[in-house]
Formats: sequence, C-alpha cells, structure tokens
Amino acid sequence: MAFLKLNADMGESFGAWVMGQDDKVMPFVDLANIACGFHASDPQVMRKTVRLAKQHGVQVGAHPSYPDLVGFGRRSLACSPEEIENLVLYQVGALHAFCQAEGVSLAYIKPHGALYNDMVRDPQIFMAVLKAVRAWDQDLPLMTLATRDTSQASALAEEAGVTLWFEAFADRAYDAEGFLVSRREPGAVHQDADKILAQARCLTLGEPLTTLDGSSLTLAADTLCVHGDNDESIAAVKAIRQLLDDLEEQA
Amino acid sequence: MAFLKLNADMGESFGAWVMGQDDKVMPFVDLANIACGFHASDPQVMRKTVRLAKQHGVQVGAHPSYPDLVGFGRRSLACSPEEIENLVLYQVGALHAFCQAEGVSLAYIKPHGALYNDMVRDPQIFMAVLKAVRAWDQDLPLMTLATRDTSQASALAEEAGVTLWFEAFADRAYDAEGFLVSRREPGAVHQDADKILAQARCLTLGEPLTTLDGSSLTLAADTLCVHGDNDESIAAVKAIRQLLDDLEEQA
Amino acid sequence: MAFLKLNADMGESFGAWVMGQDDKVMPFVDLANIACGFHASDPQVMRKTVRLAKQHGVQVGAHPSYPDLVGFGRRSLACSPEEIENLVLYQVGALHAFCQAEGVSLAYIKPHGALYNDMVRDPQIFMAVLKAVRAWDQDLPLMTLATRDTSQASALAEEAGVTLWFEAFADRAYDAEGFLVSRREPGAVHQDADKILAQARCLTLGEPLTTLDGSSLTLAADTLCVHGDNDESIAAVKAIRQLLDDLEEQA
Amino acid sequence: MAFLKLNADMGESFGAWVMGQDDKVMPFVDLANIACGFHASDPQVMRKTVRLAKQHGVQVGAHPSYPDLVGFGRRSLACSPEEIENLVLYQVGALHAFCQAEGVSLAYIKPHGALYNDMVRDPQIFMAVLKAVRAWDQDLPLMTLATRDTSQASALAEEAGVTLWFEAFADRAYDAEGFLVSRREPGAVHQDADKILAQARCLTLGEPLTTLDGSSLTLAADTLCVHGDNDESIAAVKAIRQLLDDLEEQA
Repeated sequence: MAFLKLNADMGESFGAWVMGQDDKVMPFVDLANIACGFHASDPQVMRKTVRLAKQHGVQVGAHPSYPDLVGFGRRSLACSPEEIENLVLYQVGALHAFCQAEGVSLAYIKPHGALYNDMVRDPQIFMAVLKAVRAWDQDLPLMTLATRDTSQASALAEEAGVTLWFEAFADRAYDAEGFLVSRREPGAVHQDADKILAQARCLTLGEPLTTLDGSSLTLAADTLCVHGDNDESIAAVKAIRQLLDDLEEQA
Repeated sequence: MAFLKLNADMGESFGAWVMGQDDKVMPFVDLANIACGFHASDPQVMRKTVRLAKQHGVQVGAHPSYPDLVGFGRRSLACSPEEIENLVLYQVGALHAFCQAEGVSLAYIKPHGALYNDMVRDPQIFMAVLKAVRAWDQDLPLMTLATRDTSQASALAEEAGVTLWFEAFADRAYDAEGFLVSRREPGAVHQDADKILAQARCLTLGEPLTTLDGSSLTLAADTLCVHGDNDESIAAVKAIRQLLDDLEEQA
Repeated sequence: MAFLKLNADMGESFGAWVMGQDDKVMPFVDLANIACGFHASDPQVMRKTVRLAKQHGVQVGAHPSYPDLVGFGRRSLACSPEEIENLVLYQVGALHAFCQAEGVSLAYIKPHGALYNDMVRDPQIFMAVLKAVRAWDQDLPLMTLATRDTSQASALAEEAGVTLWFEAFADRAYDAEGFLVSRREPGAVHQDADKILAQARCLTLGEPLTTLDGSSLTLAADTLCVHGDNDESIAAVKAIRQLLDDLEEQA
Repeated sequence: MAFLKLNADMGESFGAWVMGQDDKVMPFVDLANIACGFHASDPQVMRKTVRLAKQHGVQVGAHPSYPDLVGFGRRSLACSPEEIENLVLYQVGALHAFCQAEGVSLAYIKPHGALYNDMVRDPQIFMAVLKAVRAWDQDLPLMTLATRDTSQASALAEEAGVTLWFEAFADRAYDAEGFLVSRREPGAVHQDADKILAQARCLTLGEPLTTLDGSSLTLAADTLCVHGDNDESIAAVKAIRQLLDDLEEQA
C-alpha cells in the first residue's frame, strides 16, 4: 500500500507582499508546489522558497499559471494550446534555475488555479500541458485531479509518455463525478476539523467518500492537497500529517 | 590565432509586435543572444527563436535584462546584487527550458542593455551576474565588454570560477579606456560601411584601433557584436561574415 | 441623413515596438480609438497620439482592454463584472489625463479586442462597461457593434442612461444575425478593394448587404471601422474617405 | 497659525495580497495618498480606497510611482524627464477616474518611494513632476519634502505655477540639511512613542528639532506623514491625531 504524500502551494508572496506561512507548513508536507512568477512569486521569493524546501527535505514542484498577477491566476485566459505549452515551459525552466542553484531536483509539475481547472476539464489544454512536461523532461510527473473516471486523462498521459500523480482534497466536498464542488456552492468547503480528518483517512485507505449529493465515491489518489494560509489550516495540516504517520506505522 | 565569432541580439519581438529580422541575420552569425522576456520576447517568441538558431547551427546565449519591457531594458534600475543574481537566474532558466524542448544546449550568457552597461562599470553588479552564472553552470561563459584594461573583470571572473568571453564592436567608436562612446555623442556610431569593415578587420587581426580622441587602442576580443535591425545593418553583417571567412581561409 | 464617421485604432505602439502608421491614417479619419496601456501603448505613446489626433482635428476615444499586453487584448479573461467596470474606468481616466494635458476632450469609449467581443455577446459584461461609462461621464457615448437586432443593447444602454454609437465594418463579412464572421472562417475578411468600397457604400446609404450565407442584412450604423496597418489598408481608408465625402456632397 | 494635516499612504494592497490596515488608519488622517497601480494597487483596490476616504471625509491624493510592482516603487529607474512627466500624468488620470466615479475631487499629488526621493534630490526630475501637475491641473498642490532650504524647490514650483505642500516626519531622524537620514543608518527611525510625539509637537508649533548630528533644525511644514502598517504605528497615528487636536483646541 502506497501512502499519500501531502502537497501544499508555497512561495506565493510577491515583492513587498507576504502571503502564506511557508515556514510553518513546510515541515509537515512532502511536496511544495512553488509559484513561478506568473500568478505569484518573484525571483527572490523563488530562491528563498526552494531553499526552505531543501532544508526540510521537501520535494519541489513547479506551479505554473496563466500570466495574471493581479488575478492570482484564478481567471481563465483564452490561450491557444501552443501558448499554454510554452508558458508552462517558461515557468518550469525559471523555477528549475533556482533548483539548480540550490542543488535540488525539480520533482513534478502541478498547474495552478484556472490553468489547473481548465486542464482538468479540457483535453486540449490537458494535452498542451502534457506536451510541455514531455518537452521539458518526460520523467517528471504531472499532478492532476483524482476524479471518479480518470480514463481520459490517463489515456492522454500515456500517449504523451508522461506519468500522472492524482491528487485529492480532504477539506473539499465532491460531486458525483468526483469533481470538486465549486467554492461558490454551500457546503463546498469543510470547516469541521473532524470531517476533514475523516475524509483524509478515507482517501488514504481507499475507502469511499460520500459526495455532496449523497452518492458514494472512491478516489485513487497519490497525494493530498493541504493549505497553509492561516493558523486554523496549519493546525489541520499537522493533524493530517499525524494521521498519515499513524496509518503508515500501523501498516 | 582564434577567429572572432559573430553575435547578435535575437528574439526581440513581443506578442503582436515584431522587431528585427531574425531569419535574415541568423544564417550569418555564430551566437544568438536571445531575449528572455524581461526586456523583450515572450514564451512563443523564445521557442521560435531557439528553433531558428538550431536550424542554422547557431549557438544559443541567454540575454537577461532588468525587468523593464516598456523601456526595453535600456534604463538602469537600482536593484540589489542579490536581486540581480536572482533575476538573471530566472531568465536563464526560462530560456533553458526552450533549449531543452528543442534539444540544444545553452552556450553562454550575455546581459542586455542597462544591465550589461551597469555590470561593465560596477564590480558589485558584475559579481552578482557572475554568481548567477556560477549558480547555474560554472562552465557557461559570460560575455562582457572588451576594454583596454580587463584585469578587474578577469580577477572577479577567476574568483567566481567563470570564463569570460570579451566582445567588441565594429560599428561603434571607442574612448581612450576602451569603453564605447555614448550614443548621445557625435561620432559614436559608424555609418560608413568601409569604416565598419576596417574596424572589424583590426579587431579580428588584433591590430590597434584609433579611438575617438585619437589614441591607439588594441582590444583582445572573442566575439564581435552585430545588429540586424534593418536592411543596411544586415548588409553590414554579411560583409563582416565574408571578411571573417576570408581572413580565416587565408590563415 | 447622418453620415458615417470613420474610426480607427491608434496608438498601438509600445515602448520600443512600433505598430501601425498613425500619421498616415490620422488625416483621413474622424475618430481615433486610442489604446490605454493594457493591450498596447504606454504613457509616451498616449501623449503623442492624443497630440496627433488634436493636430488633425480628430476626436479622441478611449480604447480600453483586458490587461494582456502579450496577447494584445485578444484573449478573453474571465473577469467579474465589477473588475471590468473598474479596469475600464482606470484606462479611461489614464487617457483622459493626456487629453487634459493637450487641451482636448475625451469624446467616446470603445472597448478593444476580446473585451469588445465579450461585451457584444454577454449582457452582464455589456452592463459592466456601461456602468463604467456612466460612472465616468454619462454624456460620453459607448461604441458597440451594429447587428441585426440591437434591441437588447439599446435597452441596457437606456437603463444606464448612456448613448450608443453603432459601428459597422466595410472589410468584414457578416453572418445572418449581423455579427462579424470569425477571422478563422474562409471569406471572413474582404481583400478586394471594390468589394470593400461597395460595402462601405451600402452601409453609408443604409442599403442591405449580403451576408456570407446569402441573406440580406441592413445595419443602422453611426461609424465605420477602418484599419491602418499597412499600405494596402491605408489605401482603402483613403478610398472610403473619398467615397463618404462624395456621398456627403451629393446629399 | 495653520495646523498640520496628517497624510498616510493608502490603497497599497494588490490583487490577492493585502497590505496595511487602511480602515483603521483612515479615521485619523486628513489626506490619503492613494497608490495608482504602478508600485501597488489595482483598479479594484483604487475604487475601494477612494470610497473609504470619502466615507471618512479624507482628501484624496494621487501617489504615483515608477513602474515597479515587484520592487514596490522603491528602486530608482533611470527615466527621462519626459517619461516621468507622462507616467505621472497616466497615474493621476487613472486615480481621478475613481474619484469621478465616487463623486470626490482629487486634492493633491505626492510621488511615491524612489520617485519622491529622486524628485527631492534632482531638479530635472522635480521639474518633470511639476510639468505633469501643471498639465493636469495647475491648481493641484504637489507634496514634497520640507528641508532646511526649500528655496530651489519653491523657485521651480513658482516657475511652473504650482503650489507646494511641504511634509515632515515625526518618526524619522533628520540630517543637518533637513533631509531624512537613510533607513540603513542607525537611529534613522524613531521607535520610542514619546520621541515621536515630541517631534510631532515641535513640527506643529514650528519649534526646532535636533538633527542626528546634533544641529538645530526648524522646518516649515504643511503636513505630517504617518504610517499604518501595524498596530504599533496605528497607535502612534492616534496619539499624533490627539496631540494635533489638543494643540488646535488650545490655539
């Protein structure tokens, strides 16, 4: 049985603006999705964040985005597949430079925000991202959403010769197809700490979740996404880390 | 006797705006200084320009700049040395991604515009750029200005363990110290084709030039910088290429 | 009978990059849609373009866009209506400053590229732009597309208390609803000079056009959009100007 | 006797990044220096900040900067005087649009960060800013630094027909010429609340301060700059507000 890794978005400060509490979250995760300057971060922040990941033995992933600082990469931008391939490559290379400078290896790629969502919904965009990964390094995994039926994503990835890492969420409600319920809907985000832990446990053990509309959903995930925005979410990260460690020990 | 290589700035289009005639100049140069998105270029242009260089067997160099698209990187920006190190790394990595995608190697680094000028005049900035080169790949040469006395630059480069490539200009007047006369001064730029060719010949053969104030100046250069902005300058590039080929054949 | 005014996009250079031949087109148009820095232009170009319009007695319109320099404002960006209202206001104010400095009045607002297209198709976005116009100056007209049925646009504009100026195109094919055929379709752009002039004549006289699918279409337009990108299109502008002047004289 | 007004930088958030506690500071100041998008802020933040100023009856000033978001406008950029004039105009107009939308008047202009410092030190840059103010609205005051000898600034402002508002700082040490001691120097920033209040009292009553090198300095100021970055500085703002109100009542 493979245990879930914890991934979190990191390095989302920008210039004089601070976001997140990276130093408090980094000790508890396995994978750091590091912003590459298009939705957040800048060369100074990238260098510092790669260094912090290295100190904690956390694997570094590139977290590329549409070019939209003011919108934090959360707004879809109607790019062509070729534009997407190249803007992903640009950002992956930029982050790699700081990995190279700090003597660590880039371990995976996870698109950010609207680009992630668009990729999950649109096979053309998914293939554009896959082409970027393949052009950069075919051995680098691409992180995408674990849904009920991942056959299309898996077929495209196989065509591109790229490995997928599927991620799931402990603090988000799912719909019947295994997509995340939009944050705009009531009940989309779990606030209750016990509920979050229970969902983390199901996802780790491969047990079924109950979706927002009451159906049963089993997701095959490689990693859990956690957040370190505030003290409450950091407490949740620690609790999930403890849970995973306990489960791993019992195994 | 080592023959001079010809280098030219390439990939300076941006989005819908076209600059330069890269396809007309690429066949005649040895080294392409490719913009990295901070003063010009974008992911699409970078990909295309690396591909064009590859087609013509031209070596690819990163051409990083201060972040100043609207000023084309020609305006000094008061960055700290650490900021300079990291913004160079960012851009070098970004260009490397397109080299990787196209199966070519990044061959050298040449800062652009105000960053180049500031580096040539300020040892702190020169060292910041050297640190970026070293952090990226100690074996990559840094291109800088051939002046009368390059001992300080050479000492700093040796300290950093980085090789320097010195470049000279066939179409620019020099001052007594071997710096380029500012474009704002009369006589700074040679317009006469014969004068440009004569200066290229001197620089190739290691013979002395006459500076704008009448002194004699011998420069030890590895490469000549040429420009492909318009039909006239492209004609000059071809003539210099022919001259170098003839001299090499006679040698 | 009101005669059509000619409008053209102007001031689309950016920093070191030149686009268009504004000085050749300005003498032949009535309305200059001046870019405001989000898809093209910069403070220097805006000042110069307003001055050029003033010299030729051409009315100045603000030409705001989504924030997307590298995409030239041609890619839809999923902004909220409130974001659209405010980004339009920002750009209108910025252009107004140069009008103020040059002693001319801002005469109208015409959104650019993808923002224009999205506004024409989406009533929520249309209302967001109307709110920006109203918040700025209720007396300023908003330019939008003349289609077969403009009742919805007119109703929204009336609700906002804003006047609409409808524009038509002499060099573009229309579909049955009176929308422009996408440039990606064959036959979307008229290349033939006689065809362009004939369509300009129909639009001026209020006579029906034939759409690409063969239906008959009468458009009620206030202004014709012309382009000054190259020598051919500038020749077309002059010919249309001559046609309009001749028709006006005959009237 | 004219009493000092309190001014503070406001609207320095950007997109998803929050900076400052504008809602806590606004009730205690007279003048809000609102960022215009070049070093901080965006159209959404500008709208909201103008609205907040209006709610508290605070006068709105434009706070233009060099274009340098990642550097927060704190790094000098070698612009030409003409570029400075136009980039100030652009930002002033943009902020004016939100004033117009909210029904308030733009009351003054205060350059930000490196542009402010460069203007205070370099008469060419000072004149460029004055030209922008004059081109926009000759009746709008320009805020600049109160120093020992303001004769040159006053002469330039008179030449441009522009009124100056001089500002002083309660929490910063001065040098003998009446310039602020650089933040890099020890003792540059007063930490002690009593010392800050005492300096505010001197500046209000026109009594001499003691400079860092022990000389006596009397500054003629129109306004005091205060900061609302954290709880401590907000407490200082309230104390200074109380002091000014008490002094005004006693007068």
